[in-house]
Amino acid sequence: MCEIQAILGVRIMRKLNRVPPEIIERLEDFLKEDVRSGDITTDAMEPLRGEATATIFSKGKSILAGIEEVVAIAEMHDLSCEVLAFEGNWVEPRQAVIRIHGPVKTLLVIERLSLNIIQRMSGIATKTYNMVTKCRAVNPDIIIAATRKTTPGFRYFEKRAVKIGGGDPHRYALDDMILIKNNHVDAVGGVTKAVQMAKRAVSFSKKISCEARSMEEGLEAIIAGADIILLDNFTPDDIKRFVQDLKKKNLREKVLLEASGGMDEDNIVEYASSGVDIISSGALTHSYKAADFNMRVILD
Amino acid sequence: MCEIQAILGVRIMRKLNRVPPEIIERLEDFLKEDVRSGDITTDAMEPLRGEATATIFSKGKSILAGIEEVVAIAEMHDLSCEVLAFEGNWVEPRQAVIRIHGPVKTLLVIERLSLNIIQRMSGIATKTYNMVTKCRAVNPDIIIAATRKTTPGFRYFEKRAVKIGGGDPHRYALDDMILIKNNHVDAVGGVTKAVQMAKRAVSFSKKISCEARSMEEGLEAIIAGADIILLDNFTPDDIKRFVQDLKKKNLREKVLLEASGGMDEDNIVEYASSGVDIISSGALTHSYKAADFNMRVILD
Amino acid sequence: MCEIQAILGVRIMRKLNRVPPEIIERLEDFLKEDVRSGDITTDAMEPLRGEATATIFSKGKSILAGIEEVVAIAEMHDLSCEVLAFEGNWVEPRQAVIRIHGPVKTLLVIERLSLNIIQRMSGIATKTYNMVTKCRAVNPDIIIAATRKTTPGFRYFEKRAVKIGGGDPHRYALDDMILIKNNHVDAVGGVTKAVQMAKRAVSFSKKISCEARSMEEGLEAIIAGADIILLDNFTPDDIKRFVQDLKKKNLREKVLLEASGGMDEDNIVEYASSGVDIISSGALTHSYKAADFNMRVILD
Amino acid sequence: MCEIQAILGVRIMRKLNRVPPEIIERLEDFLKEDVRSGDITTDAMEPLRGEATATIFSKGKSILAGIEEVVAIAEMHDLSCEVLAFEGNWVEPRQAVIRIHGPVKTLLVIERLSLNIIQRMSGIATKTYNMVTKCRAVNPDIIIAATRKTTPGFRYFEKRAVKIGGGDPHRYALDDMILIKNNHVDAVGGVTKAVQMAKRAVSFSKKISCEARSMEEGLEAIIAGADIILLDNFTPDDIKRFVQDLKKKNLREKVLLEASGGMDEDNIVEYASSGVDIISSGALTHSYKAADFNMRVILD
Amino acid sequence: MCEIQAILGVRIMRKLNRVPPEIIERLEDFLKEDVRSGDITTDAMEPLRGEATATIFSKGKSILAGIEEVVAIAEMHDLSCEVLAFEGNWVEPRQAVIRIHGPVKTLLVIERLSLNIIQRMSGIATKTYNMVTKCRAVNPDIIIAATRKTTPGFRYFEKRAVKIGGGDPHRYALDDMILIKNNHVDAVGGVTKAVQMAKRAVSFSKKISCEARSMEEGLEAIIAGADIILLDNFTPDDIKRFVQDLKKKNLREKVLLEASGGMDEDNIVEYASSGVDIISSGALTHSYKAADFNMRVILD
Amino acid sequence: MCEIQAILGVRIMRKLNRVPPEIIERLEDFLKEDVRSGDITTDAMEPLRGEATATIFSKGKSILAGIEEVVAIAEMHDLSCEVLAFEGNWVEPRQAVIRIHGPVKTLLVIERLSLNIIQRMSGIATKTYNMVTKCRAVNPDIIIAATRKTTPGFRYFEKRAVKIGGGDPHRYALDDMILIKNNHVDAVGGVTKAVQMAKRAVSFSKKISCEARSMEEGLEAIIAGADIILLDNFTPDDIKRFVQDLKKKNLREKVLLEASGGMDEDNIVEYASSGVDIISSGALTHSYKAADFNMRVILD
Repeated sequence: MCEIQAILGVRIMRKLNRVPPEIIERLEDFLKEDVRSGDITTDAMEPLRGEATATIFSKGKSILAGIEEVVAIAEMHDLSCEVLAFEGNWVEPRQAVIRIHGPVKTLLVIERLSLNIIQRMSGIATKTYNMVTKCRAVNPDIIIAATRKTTPGFRYFEKRAVKIGGGDPHRYALDDMILIKNNHVDAVGGVTKAVQMAKRAVSFSKKISCEARSMEEGLEAIIAGADIILLDNFTPDDIKRFVQDLKKKNLREKVLLEASGGMDEDNIVEYASSGVDIISSGALTHSYKAADFNMRVILD
Repeated sequence: MCEIQAILGVRIMRKLNRVPPEIIERLEDFLKEDVRSGDITTDAMEPLRGEATATIFSKGKSILAGIEEVVAIAEMHDLSCEVLAFEGNWVEPRQAVIRIHGPVKTLLVIERLSLNIIQRMSGIATKTYNMVTKCRAVNPDIIIAATRKTTPGFRYFEKRAVKIGGGDPHRYALDDMILIKNNHVDAVGGVTKAVQMAKRAVSFSKKISCEARSMEEGLEAIIAGADIILLDNFTPDDIKRFVQDLKKKNLREKVLLEASGGMDEDNIVEYASSGVDIISSGALTHSYKAADFNMRVILD
Repeated sequence: MCEIQAILGVRIMRKLNRVPPEIIERLEDFLKEDVRSGDITTDAMEPLRGEATATIFSKGKSILAGIEEVVAIAEMHDLSCEVLAFEGNWVEPRQAVIRIHGPVKTLLVIERLSLNIIQRMSGIATKTYNMVTKCRAVNPDIIIAATRKTTPGFRYFEKRAVKIGGGDPHRYALDDMILIKNNHVDAVGGVTKAVQMAKRAVSFSKKISCEARSMEEGLEAIIAGADIILLDNFTPDDIKRFVQDLKKKNLREKVLLEASGGMDEDNIVEYASSGVDIISSGALTHSYKAADFNMRVILD
Repeated sequence: MCEIQAILGVRIMRKLNRVPPEIIERLEDFLKEDVRSGDITTDAMEPLRGEATATIFSKGKSILAGIEEVVAIAEMHDLSCEVLAFEGNWVEPRQAVIRIHGPVKTLLVIERLSLNIIQRMSGIATKTYNMVTKCRAVNPDIIIAATRKTTPGFRYFEKRAVKIGGGDPHRYALDDMILIKNNHVDAVGGVTKAVQMAKRAVSFSKKISCEARSMEEGLEAIIAGADIILLDNFTPDDIKRFVQDLKKKNLREKVLLEASGGMDEDNIVEYASSGVDIISSGALTHSYKAADFNMRVILD
Repeated sequence: MCEIQAILGVRIMRKLNRVPPEIIERLEDFLKEDVRSGDITTDAMEPLRGEATATIFSKGKSILAGIEEVVAIAEMHDLSCEVLAFEGNWVEPRQAVIRIHGPVKTLLVIERLSLNIIQRMSGIATKTYNMVTKCRAVNPDIIIAATRKTTPGFRYFEKRAVKIGGGDPHRYALDDMILIKNNHVDAVGGVTKAVQMAKRAVSFSKKISCEARSMEEGLEAIIAGADIILLDNFTPDDIKRFVQDLKKKNLREKVLLEASGGMDEDNIVEYASSGVDIISSGALTHSYKAADFNMRVILD
Repeated sequence: MCEIQAILGVRIMRKLNRVPPEIIERLEDFLKEDVRSGDITTDAMEPLRGEATATIFSKGKSILAGIEEVVAIAEMHDLSCEVLAFEGNWVEPRQAVIRIHGPVKTLLVIERLSLNIIQRMSGIATKTYNMVTKCRAVNPDIIIAATRKTTPGFRYFEKRAVKIGGGDPHRYALDDMILIKNNHVDAVGGVTKAVQMAKRAVSFSKKISCEARSMEEGLEAIIAGADIILLDNFTPDDIKRFVQDLKKKNLREKVLLEASGGMDEDNIVEYASSGVDIISSGALTHSYKAADFNMRVILD
């Protein structure tokens, strides 16, 4: 590991205070889940009272993510650490990504959790990065967004990994934005009514997105004042026609268009060039492959 | 849905009290993660005050898992539900698996969490079932076990899915069993010493497993009193030779043998027929594919 | 209390599930604050084992708010209740607003908390209603919004009271919307840069508001893509000129304009007619006068 | 700000350990309420990584309170601070009261909460101080006490502000003292019985107060052994007569007399000179006017 | 068990709402401590799905205590129960004290906790009852009080058992009463100063007790306004002389006298007849002998 | 106190990180139980702002336990401490065991909790040590184990005291090991079935213990695969015969034998020489006598 990267590492560490307190609490819960009443094996090994250095290595090639969380885990345990690679950059096989120093018992206790986080987050970041790169080749302004299809309790980490990979996290929770789905529309009796109810119910500080099953619904939602139109199961050609129509009506600038539903690596590029602003994909967080990392511990 | 399945459904529901209180709390946390301060969209739709029936359908073929959790979520919200398919059984495309009835707002609020759980758990159960089936064809007593490579905060669900698929959950946490790893052995100066320290440190009620890098270490651990030997990166042939040797020494009955490291769908059957008792595989929980399910809501 | 109001009361009660779970928890904390280890006086009164009916009366004239919370408190304690007056409506001196029935001990325990909530929320709702009414007389579309100047721990209740009174709750927390303040602008080197950074940092699902100290800054923020311009300490005349200018440039439709700073009952109407969309006022939640209510308990 | 005040400031800071742990937790909750998942605006401003000094200034004249809490908030975030004015003293317009130094992001995050606390507490302290001063002019030993009419969740802060202003906090919770109200008396069948029940039910370490609607009830309560008599809606003249009577019976020394009900700035002085020991007033905590403070942040 | 006792049992059950919410939470914590992630044995026994009746029997003779807690545990698990013996009464060997009905799994889960509570509380109640009876034979008004020498986390239960046995629980926590110890007196420079400081610092609603090492200190404390004098290591004769002296000075009625330090079953009666009002003894909660109870479960 | 012990003290302190986080939380809860909203007496003593040294002394002779917990309490409050005696060693009357330095207020606040813990834990350790010593005189390999008959909420501390005294803590919770009791056996229809069900239900990583009421049941359980046989109410002679029989059948090595039920100081030695591996006794934790310790505080 060269000097320069170590210095850069320090720069990353200064960002640590980004990890919000409730995430610190969650990391503690994660550790409790793994350790419960204690690491009875390590506790039994009496000579294991010294200090050691643990290094996490990448075993394959991936976009690195999860370093900030590992730094947080280390700092929660008063371990010093040296970040050796940037989140959002490619790491190569056998590349060291972080070095942690402190009591060997503590290092052994945090090993599994650290790897479980870094492997999953890097897997998602890599998948996102690849999708974004592919789509931006045909549409440099396209936004690739995640969905709420995340692992329960692990959303923050999965969404952050999407962001590191160049994607947009989309809503973190149901209170982030109004998103009127088809069942809402049907239940209240039409798009216009639904958008109006939403406007009346929430603060002006919230955006309103409305799902549309047809160009007519899309148009109606725009006129009713929606900020975003979610085009559900439109083909790329449908979208192109809709965009054309909006431009003619001088309405294209008034809204963002989001395509969703059945996005996969085969068809996503076609959607990217259809004229939408945003493509959202559940696969980013529910069907990624974990990247491979391991930790080596050397006693002082 | 025929009468009989509905009756069986009731039988499953009686098992509900299996969901331990701390898991109920975790389900509540999951819901808070998704909803945060409120489902502002649904809250805004004033006419949505009625009741409805939500049905979850399988979109593909998988071993069903996660129904107990969905029932728990439903009961936490005073929703009535009818279980239509068994956990651990195959479900087919378009098969309804559970029907939930209650206020439409509540149904919309629990939709995403219920699907996120059922999709992940069924994916793991399916992968486990396939591995177990394949290995049992060559060794009917083989145990296929998970590891601690689980999604932080979601271990209970992933381990339970492994069990539904016919696998062994292995340790839930570090206090479940003594597992002496190579670094423990090296730090204290040998297998015998490590096993002795463990015996002195923990109650007689705990099992002791010891990792072995060679047949010599394996033998030493057995003589020192280990209950389980974890054969790390042994080839199937190595294992066969070791088993042979133990039988000769009349020690085979005294221990369980577990193989681990780099297990995949290609080589696992060969290991299954090598004479070990247990094969553990991290892939069961970190590289499964989520099964596909959706929910349809019909207003009363 | 006539039959009809009681029936309406039932309708309100069906809305109860609006009180989100974390608010239920907060109500429990409030009760613990008041009761701590127990109501030692009532516990000491042995004959107080029977049931009773408690009625809350308004002592003055105010816009009623806080009934939903009192219903929630009652239901948390398995008390039945009958709502006798609507939130958002005027109540008169000596008017009964809610009747609660159950064990007298429980009624005595919840008395103080229920009154403390209903008095403060009705006070805020009344003040908001009066301000909104006054401003809408000159500008029927004006939005009167609260700020984050709320009592720590009590924000949800104060914001909801603002809403009941016809106001807009504005941001509940710092993650609800981007709001670029002057110090942000100065720190990053200009309005355009700040807005661009914000756009890059957050999801497309968030609105961006930017404070402007001058028309130039306001214009710059609009062009950079802000959704809302917060006009800080502009006089009504400044605002009128700015609105004029935006209309000429065909930009008025692209943004919402919010006026803030030193709003009081004397000058607010002038601002309301200046052409802004929103006026926000801290006084709504920090300088209201509690409305007066009391509770009478009659043993069965 | 002169040298001397800064030195005094240090002396105040040594008192910090007075803030009890559960209040530290509550301050954390308050901050979570305001920040929720993060200050997305400040986080987006990349250059805002440096340190700064924040100074809180009084904008009007008030009795200062809430400094201890702001110090606690600062220390919770590892910010250094310098106290520039004493709690309980008058502060003047434009007077700096505390200076806090640390990362600018953290300063911006704690700004709103710190001001919300200091403004409300100083408002209450000022009102209390004025009432106490007025009443002590006619009766130097009079105790002016708060009630349980506090903002839910904020009682500790409001009661402490009363104390800083020279008032008595009275009961913090229902377990602090026995206080037999009229409904207790009626339910058990008389004052004597109620006092006896209370004595039997609680430890000798608790005081017993008993509300009296007439001189007869007051006398009965004293003879039954009450430590305090709460005179409910007695006129000042009634009280004078009662005091006279007790002196004649040689009972005045045995009890404390508390007057309550409808106390306001107009009539409180008359009560203060009536011979009671204590006057309690809900208005101290439910109808005060927040004092005005602001914070200025200067980057290093 | 005769009909009448069962009916009385119902009466006791109506008192259940006495168990305060925080104690319900503590009972839940106790159960989690015992069960942790689950009763893996009972869960493994598949036929154990039915209902059963569990009866708790006394194996020896003791004053019964802890029934209310067992009822609370039962109700927390939706088990019905029938109370067969009164708290505070003697129970005989083989006497059934409570019958609980519900799912056999649940009964087995709550067995150990229920017995652990009832055995300890009955042990303390019995010891207290015996001491109180002995002392009241010589002084019918004497109060026998516990101390803060309780098992950490179990104070509520131990104090309540003291009360059931006829004793006084004394302070539950350090905020219940001012108790000036010798080190306080020495640190501030004398009894008078200490009592004055206390009076200034706390609300009028709190009692003030002051420890005295000599009659002089005792007298000084009374004159300074203490409500209770704690006579530390006074002999019974010392106390008699002090009481005599106070009577002469017409001060006996102004205070309560409490004796403490080295109280045991040998000397306590002598103290009881010395003229004090209260004797406090740590032995009540730290050196009792658990009473013996067991539970029998019969499947329906 | 000599130099050497102080140095050894430091060595003990390095073990401090053994106190698991959830126990740190429990110690905090214990302190809250004792202090609740504050030590109002000490807070009132204004001069008590300095530092002091507190020393805990043994008043009798006992095996010392609980020092680690007191160190943890001290460190939680940033107090420095010097350990003067080892856990597990005999301490004599008037021997100082730990010295703690810091603010006098804090020392007074932690006094009662520290003593309550050290007294109970040393009492248990002493009783255990005496039993172990007596039994090992006749059987040097015998294990003396505790049970689940512990004080609710205080199990960790009582079990750890047993271990310090030379005993085996046995199960901490119901998920530590399968323990099939007689009611399980009866409910499922026999020992063999119960053991088989257990094997199927739990991971291979768990031990299985099975209670036996007769030699036949014991034998059946061994053959079914139990790891431990719990001999319930066997006489020492019964056990001898059973051991003999197992040896003949070449099964003695396959299991551990545990005797339980009615163990007391009179008969335990006889059991120890009967050939069992383990004797478990509830009396270790439910009928010990607290050791006597006190704390002296000297102001700097």
